[in-house]
Amino acid sequence: MLDVIAVGFDPKKTFFIINTKHAGLLYPEAIKVAKKITFSTIKSSFGFTDSNNIGSIFYTSMQTVPSFLPSILKKKNIPCLIPHAVDQDNHFRITRDILPKLGYYKPASIQCLFLPPLKGNLGKMSSTGDFKGIFMSDSPQEIKNKINKYAFSGGMATLEEHREKGGNPDVDVPFQYLKYLFEEDDDKLNKIEKEYREGKLLSGDLKKYAIEKISKFILEHQERRKEAPSKINDFILKV
Amino acid sequence: MLDVIAVGFDPKKTFFIINTKHAGLLYPEAIKVAKKITFSTIKSSFGFTDSNNIGSIFYTSMQTVPSFLPSILKKKNIPCLIPHAVDQDNHFRITRDILPKLGYYKPASIQCLFLPPLKGNLGKMSSTGDFKGIFMSDSPQEIKNKINKYAFSGGMATLEEHREKGGNPDVDVPFQYLKYLFEEDDDKLNKIEKEYREGKLLSGDLKKYAIEKISKFILEHQERRKEAPSKINDFILKV
Repeated sequence: MLDVIAVGFDPKKTFFIINTKHAGLLYPEAIKVAKKITFSTIKSSFGFTDSNNIGSIFYTSMQTVPSFLPSILKKKNIPCLIPHAVDQDNHFRITRDILPKLGYYKPASIQCLFLPPLKGNLGKMSSTGDFKGIFMSDSPQEIKNKINKYAFSGGMATLEEHREKGGNPDVDVPFQYLKYLFEEDDDKLNKIEKEYREGKLLSGDLKKYAIEKISKFILEHQERRKEAPSKINDFILKV
Repeated sequence: MLDVIAVGFDPKKTFFIINTKHAGLLYPEAIKVAKKITFSTIKSSFGFTDSNNIGSIFYTSMQTVPSFLPSILKKKNIPCLIPHAVDQDNHFRITRDILPKLGYYKPASIQCLFLPPLKGNLGKMSSTGDFKGIFMSDSPQEIKNKINKYAFSGGMATLEEHREKGGNPDVDVPFQYLKYLFEEDDDKLNKIEKEYREGKLLSGDLKKYAIEKISKFILEHQERRKEAPSKINDFILKV
């Protein structure tokens, strides 16, 4: 919540829903959905077995409710767009199957890509395992060390080879970070990509630029985040 | 709720909990329980299959919460006694397995028998199927007709046989109703049982007495029930 607030969402248009805090609102709706979902569906959607706990089995029902909660609160059918990461897709595929049966619109989805971890593996940047990520709480020094030590580079092995063959921005993690989030100027980004591919821009210089951009964003974010706790109540859905 | 109030429960000691209305209180606790119950347990306890809906699979978690809700509300561990009919036993067997893992006492149970249906089958008196029951909304005339037409009798086929061999109060539904609920005077009940077994009391007279007692109770109950709607709010748990 603090990070979402710090990013600059407008509290007039943004409502946090907390499954446990808003259970009085969500649960009565969730059980209507739950009646239409069998364990067979959950098994095939999530790869669950009989050993999964019944909370995780029921969870999808709660997850569907924000898709039609505005319709309930406003007492009219309102279409809903869910921006979510790809790993949440199963929940909303089930949601799209069920909601018309309850008289609501199917929710639309925007599926977000995961920002790759520093080592460049596909998958979700994570605080566990060997993925190595940059955290919103990292200091500029930590960011610098992590990128220099771990960030997967699309540059060639030697300076000569790089100058000759060029780097590969498509797998270069510092470039990907600039592309996904940190370089807002598209012309500048295109120039970086072109020069990197042509071997004019070196891997070390690309890293250095990414470190600057990321550190600047995170320092400013950390400043805004300090103000966020006092704003939380403006964001939590009032019922 | 209206029937429970009409029976005379004390609102100072009686709290109605409604799964949907009190979901804000129950759900956060239910998910702690749900994490400790696998679908395997639910399958073997209730005979469920993969075709059961995920609401029914999760339901036991909600059902466990009243067993430790007083402990949560009073912030100290309070033992709990659950009077319930035998068909609810599965829920509370699971509850007894889980609660110690969460630091609460196992709930104790009083298992209530079902009042037999008029036709005397074993099982739950029901508004569906061919069980035939007396309803709290029945008129004295309906009660009389139902008992005379449907009530399974332990009397013998003929008057002579009954006088000679005696009736069987153990399977006689009007006698069972008197025994379970409607004859509060144990001496009187014992006398009825003895005379019926000896053939002195006829089946028709036993039915007639049962009709009187049941009609009297239900008429009074219906009167008290008219006052009950105005009292509901005194009974619903305040949180």
